[in-house]
Amino acid sequence: MNHAARLHALRDRLERPLFVTLPPNIRYLTGFTGSLGYLFVPTEGEAVFITDGRYGELAAPLVANLEDTRLEVSSTGMWPLIASVVAGVPEIALEADGVTWDFVSSFETETGASAVATTGVVEDARRTKDAEEVEALRAAAAAGDRAFDALGDLVAPEPTESELGWALIDVMREAGGTAAGWDPIVAVDAGASIPHYRSGTNRVGSGLLLLDYGCTVEGYHSDMSRTVWIDATPDDEMARVYRAVAEAQQAGIDAVGVGVACHDVDEACRAVLRSYGYEEQFLHSTGHGVGLEIHEGPGVRRGNDDPLRAGDVVTIEPGVYLPGVGGVRIEDMVLVTETGAEVLTHSSREPHLP
Amino acid sequence: MNHAARLHALRDRLERPLFVTLPPNIRYLTGFTGSLGYLFVPTEGEAVFITDGRYGELAAPLVANLEDTRLEVSSTGMWPLIASVVAGVPEIALEADGVTWDFVSSFETETGASAVATTGVVEDARRTKDAEEVEALRAAAAAGDRAFDALGDLVAPEPTESELGWALIDVMREAGGTAAGWDPIVAVDAGASIPHYRSGTNRVGSGLLLLDYGCTVEGYHSDMSRTVWIDATPDDEMARVYRAVAEAQQAGIDAVGVGVACHDVDEACRAVLRSYGYEEQFLHSTGHGVGLEIHEGPGVRRGNDDPLRAGDVVTIEPGVYLPGVGGVRIEDMVLVTETGAEVLTHSSREPHLP
Repeated sequence: MNHAARLHALRDRLERPLFVTLPPNIRYLTGFTGSLGYLFVPTEGEAVFITDGRYGELAAPLVANLEDTRLEVSSTGMWPLIASVVAGVPEIALEADGVTWDFVSSFETETGASAVATTGVVEDARRTKDAEEVEALRAAAAAGDRAFDALGDLVAPEPTESELGWALIDVMREAGGTAAGWDPIVAVDAGASIPHYRSGTNRVGSGLLLLDYGCTVEGYHSDMSRTVWIDATPDDEMARVYRAVAEAQQAGIDAVGVGVACHDVDEACRAVLRSYGYEEQFLHSTGHGVGLEIHEGPGVRRGNDDPLRAGDVVTIEPGVYLPGVGGVRIEDMVLVTETGAEVLTHSSREPHLP
Repeated sequence: MNHAARLHALRDRLERPLFVTLPPNIRYLTGFTGSLGYLFVPTEGEAVFITDGRYGELAAPLVANLEDTRLEVSSTGMWPLIASVVAGVPEIALEADGVTWDFVSSFETETGASAVATTGVVEDARRTKDAEEVEALRAAAAAGDRAFDALGDLVAPEPTESELGWALIDVMREAGGTAAGWDPIVAVDAGASIPHYRSGTNRVGSGLLLLDYGCTVEGYHSDMSRTVWIDATPDDEMARVYRAVAEAQQAGIDAVGVGVACHDVDEACRAVLRSYGYEEQFLHSTGHGVGLEIHEGPGVRRGNDDPLRAGDVVTIEPGVYLPGVGGVRIEDMVLVTETGAEVLTHSSREPHLP
């Protein structure tokens, strides 16, 4: 990944010095993956990457790859180091959704600078995935597809929901993915009526199975959902639910394109579910951006009039949930291209084992 | 876990209404494990658990188990719901290290209440582990021990560092653990000189191997580190490093007891390393509390004069790192008891395969 170019582009856009704190933004700009790192980006002069002794050796080669950036490693305390790095700068932008209330207070007290709330500066750049990022996202999506393709074998020993989650992760890992920071959702029968069900000890035998899972490749996430019936067919009601969700999902994908407002994509899904009488059973929004974070901008939801741009990668994942009965969700990752949309998830969307 | 009793105890201590936002605090008080949940605890009247449509069905039985607490599920937007829940309350404490700057601003604007910064209210209660929590921590530590016991078999096929990390997780999973939200640190040879090394594609063959890993049981973490030489013996320098770290770690464990200040436990480790001339190569603090978070209070470090209490569970994990050469870290979990300390990690601390 070309971190130097990203930092360079950020600096060209900066109106005031920025103190970057959000881990995915730090990773995007530097490649650093440790749990404690800050990047101070002044409008002029050297940028400074700050970490502590645990991560100095990890950070050194990454910082060496950047332009006009030096490394500072705290040995006796983080705040004195931060204060010395930003000394003399009167106003510094902090990521208002990336710092705690506590951090802001300490920052102002310890450095003497005024903190200015800002949001979305780095995130806005992160929305537009470059070729290397798309490649990582494709590879992560492909690992998810590989796991779905193996589903017949994986359910044969009638694993518990948790065991099946692990088995999906194992296949993705063999396909080059790394486990994401969240567990697969594996829900059978009525459990599928809880959109974010916690997989447990129910056995995956015959009947309804809802899966929502993904992995990461070079830090980039995949995210997919499928709903199938194993050795069974849905009853009339659930068959109708499946049809509604599948049609809604296709309508959402068809709506994706450069310049289309996010809420219009959401509405494309929602209108189909409304026509089936299921809008009230659609308990979440249509989708979200995906990249270094599993949930990032843009939000594909009501009220977001932000237009899609080429390079956005979003999920399209309508669902319908009938409490105590079951639920259906179908989710793909979609890349917005100059000419339309490319679905990155290639798994079958039929309601049975692949 | 007795969530009702915990919430009851919190209410008895509250001086002003508290709006709980930190996920581990939410889990501690309610059992809720979703990604979006808030708990409003007034000084009088019903507490309110707030979530969105994804989690309503998950939250309902948990909230039903609490006393004087009702569930509110947002359907059209979180802020209007929060505003209605806290309507008429003039001052509300927010967790200053658990809310973003953005959240505080929105909270005050949307509710009209004044936010008061507070920290550590729930965390202080979380420090003292009850019998069920200790049982979960023991089980998590035992799963880690099981993985270490299997190390000879796991390294036999000469896996990569990442593959060995996965193999450790697999054994912990078979032993009843769930993967923690962080990857095992598996570092060979010079990689071990980076305290928080990122496991990669180096093969684990003969030579130095540093492991730092853990799992969770019912949300409670284990955390352990071991350093061994495989089919090899350390040279004189590294043998001396090992001896220094092993003695330091034992000195730290011996120092643990009710009423002992955290910095005195840190100093017990540090003094041993100093006597060997390695204090400058000890790049982190001695340890940290462990529970629903992998790092929680109390911090076993210089400058923390907080006394240990019965029920604290802390890690004791001194390390010495020689850049480009190698590193040694030995880490156990220790429960502070009324009469001293109990080491929860039972793996061999010898510098060779178990």
